[in-house]
Amino acid sequence: MISKKHRLIRALRREPVDATPVWIMRQAGRYLPEYRATRKRAGNFMTLCKTPELACEVTLQPLQRFALDAAILFSDILTIPDAMGLGLSVEEGIGPRFSRTVTTQSDVNALGVPDPETELRYVIDAVRLVTHELANRTPLIGFAGSPWTIASYMVEGGSTREFKKIKALIYEDPALAEKLLSVLSDSVTVYLNAQIQAGVNAVMLFDTWGGILEARAYQQFSLQYMQRIIEGLTAVPDGKRVPTIIFTKGGGPSLERIAEAGASALGIDWTQSLGEARRRVGDRVALQGNMDPFVLHSDASQLEREVRAVLEDFGQGPGHVFNLGHGITPDVDPDKVALLVDLVH
Amino acid sequence: MISKKHRLIRALRREPVDATPVWIMRQAGRYLPEYRATRKRAGNFMTLCKTPELACEVTLQPLQRFALDAAILFSDILTIPDAMGLGLSVEEGIGPRFSRTVTTQSDVNALGVPDPETELRYVIDAVRLVTHELANRTPLIGFAGSPWTIASYMVEGGSTREFKKIKALIYEDPALAEKLLSVLSDSVTVYLNAQIQAGVNAVMLFDTWGGILEARAYQQFSLQYMQRIIEGLTAVPDGKRVPTIIFTKGGGPSLERIAEAGASALGIDWTQSLGEARRRVGDRVALQGNMDPFVLHSDASQLEREVRAVLEDFGQGPGHVFNLGHGITPDVDPDKVALLVDLVH
Repeated sequence: MISKKHRLIRALRREPVDATPVWIMRQAGRYLPEYRATRKRAGNFMTLCKTPELACEVTLQPLQRFALDAAILFSDILTIPDAMGLGLSVEEGIGPRFSRTVTTQSDVNALGVPDPETELRYVIDAVRLVTHELANRTPLIGFAGSPWTIASYMVEGGSTREFKKIKALIYEDPALAEKLLSVLSDSVTVYLNAQIQAGVNAVMLFDTWGGILEARAYQQFSLQYMQRIIEGLTAVPDGKRVPTIIFTKGGGPSLERIAEAGASALGIDWTQSLGEARRRVGDRVALQGNMDPFVLHSDASQLEREVRAVLEDFGQGPGHVFNLGHGITPDVDPDKVALLVDLVH
Repeated sequence: MISKKHRLIRALRREPVDATPVWIMRQAGRYLPEYRATRKRAGNFMTLCKTPELACEVTLQPLQRFALDAAILFSDILTIPDAMGLGLSVEEGIGPRFSRTVTTQSDVNALGVPDPETELRYVIDAVRLVTHELANRTPLIGFAGSPWTIASYMVEGGSTREFKKIKALIYEDPALAEKLLSVLSDSVTVYLNAQIQAGVNAVMLFDTWGGILEARAYQQFSLQYMQRIIEGLTAVPDGKRVPTIIFTKGGGPSLERIAEAGASALGIDWTQSLGEARRRVGDRVALQGNMDPFVLHSDASQLEREVRAVLEDFGQGPGHVFNLGHGITPDVDPDKVALLVDLVH
């Protein structure tokens, strides 16, 4: 029998499964009343992240409601720069903010690689708590932001629509940009290796902002560093490398090159047909995605049509992990998620 | 000798040229002091659009400064819904706003196809003035918004980041959405045919928001209607169909299908490699693009490297029209545009 634990891992390795595995980006999140209650108790988002018991609690909440095929660690893509001393805060409706930004050569030179077992211990402890609770029944996905995406926030200081400062950096001082990206990729590598040692069964790189780059710049400033990280994931607690997922939002134009970066699977956003993606990348990688999150506002029959369309678009054969094409939004009815998971299975 | 007029048209038809033609999206715009002066004189953006003498004046301004290979009519992608009675205003920093939006069946039923020679006469008169002034020295590009993009603004009432209302419409009442898109594609077809009769030498469809759609929905609600418009462009004042360009921003994931829509050329945004786009679409269409507009903030040597990289990415052979991957921004130094045009040639 193929256990639930194996369904996700097998699909990521492009091995046959009894049913398409499904999990949802931001599945531990604001659309769940029990999440909102825990967050209220925590006081603010970063306290929730930094308290392993609370992070463990919200990580497990969606699994208590839905027959999901994976848990994903509740954390943030900006824990690394926070550990580097930039002072992260995250507010609803505003997004992440740093109290210090990175602008000069000396700012970059001052950055060191955080030790996961001390400066990021709260993350590793949360992994240990969650894997203990899951007791091998369901796999746990660990994650990190991509160096490019983390660097964007560090240089801009928070969310932006225009990315003027980080673009100015790569075009005006590419060597300094590469130095920043190097320390970030070293940091992500040790961070993810520590998550693997602590028990995560797969890891995902969230490259939220790779898609804003011109295609050559994407290769040079984002994809190259993700490739370096994947090569550096040498932690093998079970004697076998864990599967890896790269998700570049808006990465559709560069799929062929992303498929060559060494990851087991590519996250696909909803603007890309899964079938066309599969034709373009061939059998090198599994694909994860890609229903438009908005479809969770539809009625049951429309939702069923759209789920079927995503599954048929991928087509026969192994290597599909069902997910949304982007994070679930806070205004979704949790019952729709239950229906979605049933429909996929 | 190949005249400047022919350089653009020949490239769009994938015929050999003496130098890669170049024009710039929003080349008649706020980065030019003479544009700002004319706009100030007009009082507001819509008066500038609706006064043929002023629209002609700003259309020609960039050609007096730079050796551009095309003029593009100064107008707006939302002239059609304005002519349908929705009351368009455009304010700097806010973007377009309608005084009335389209939400119900009866709103859609009330929409008629505007007559270009009466309700949109100001556009057609501007085309006549510009073509008279250009006297066949430089080609004039006419344009319209895509039905999907126009519909997004009509339903949302203005700019949006989430597109909740228009997405709710296509998922909850696709038949009503298609009715709206049909009247818009009929309207765009007669509007572009009138522009062609009045003298434009090529036409472009701006599909600014096609890229937010899930790939199947993009085909059904955006691309299908653009294809219908291109088939309907039967005006042939010179006995020959004018070249057509489809530009779906964020359309990289669907290039193969866009290339089958019947257009002469595809606009390519900066996130897509021109070389990879060319490999994917083959020899069916010319490509227009695609330097990141941000590069116009770089110094001369960096600008030269980036221009060279775009030209080399496209490679040898006919069928390239150089452009930015999106509109030029108001903060660009006009001297950089002069340098860009020289570098391309």
